[in-house]
This record gives sequence, C-alpha cells and structure tokens, in this order.
Amino acid sequence: MTDKLSDTGRKTMLEPLLATGWELDEGRDAIAKTFVFDDFVGAFGFMTRAALWAEKWDHHPEWSNVYKTVKVVLTTHDVDGLSALDVKLARKMDQIAGA
Amino acid sequence: MTDKLSDTGRKTMLEPLLATGWELDEGRDAIAKTFVFDDFVGAFGFMTRAALWAEKWDHHPEWSNVYKTVKVVLTTHDVDGLSALDVKLARKMDQIAGA
Repeated sequence: MTDKLSDTGRKTMLEPLLATGWELDEGRDAIAKTFVFDDFVGAFGFMTRAALWAEKWDHHPEWSNVYKTVKVVLTTHDVDGLSALDVKLARKMDQIAGA
Repeated sequence: MTDKLSDTGRKTMLEPLLATGWELDEGRDAIAKTFVFDDFVGAFGFMTRAALWAEKWDHHPEWSNVYKTVKVVLTTHDVDGLSALDVKLARKMDQIAGA
C-alpha cells in the first residue's frame, strides 16, 4: 500500500524535484511540470516512454499535449495527495526528458 | 494550403461528426470529443495510433489523458478555425476508437 508522503519524505524527496522545475499545487497536493520538446515527435516520444513506466508501476499521470508541449500533473488518488509513487514517476520523466 | 471550412463544408462534413459525439466549440471554432476506454492501455493505445496519423498528416490534436479518458480538441491554427484536416483527423480518431 502506498502512503502519503510524510514531512520527512517531503523534505528529502520533494525538494530536489522542485529544483528541477516541478511545482507544487498545494490546493490539490499534486506536483506539476511543463516539458517542452523540439516538436511533436519529441513530445509524443516522451509520453510513450513515460506511459510504459506508468503502466508498469500502475501509477498514471494526468497530462495534456499540444504539439511540442506536454503538461504533467502527478498525484495519488488512493491517498488523496502525494506519495512516493509520484516522486518515482516524476524522476523517471525527468530522466526520459533528459532534464 | 488548407482552407477554413465553407458553409457547405460545415453542412456536409461537420454535421455527420456531430452525430458521432463531437461537439462544436463555437467560441474557438473547434471540435471536441471525450473518448473513454476500458483502461490506460486502451486510452494510450488510441493516442499512439492517432499520433502516428497526426504526424503523418502534420496536423496535431490538443488532447489530455487521465487514466482511461482522452479529451481531444481539433482546430487548425493556420486558418484560425476548422478545416478539412480537422474533419479528416476526427474521422480517423473515430475509426481508431471503433466508434
């Protein structure tokens, strides 16, 4: 079972993400980031790679795409807020995007 | 060059789409549809197939995905409204989704 991030988890896991461009939506207890690629192939290629990890981990993003831009929101519905799964998927997305 | 849909084009091409669940956003002169699948694999599989056609035709949707749901908006920025390309991509998406 996934747990909501503790205060310690927020400090050790969330803060490094916020330094890479993720932003905290405190109203929803979610994190969000906008990724911009060279073109649609770059953007959808990123989504495809991220989708495989999301499905493998059974943890899926809320995301939108307009041409070369992908906006991602991560939160964990089961805990009504952020969990370690969001941090894991966010890190993977940064890695895939080459950030 | 793509042209904005004429009044005749709207009647002959748009009306059949509106009967399949597409809705006209008159404020933006765009069409929108929400596709719901069984799960994320169904939703992202649809997006992947649609993405290949979009790239092939160099005409890309604005879309968002949350788990098994995909919301699509189609419009043609070059003509600041709907063109035959939107109708073509909408029909293809309906076909892919099995609608």
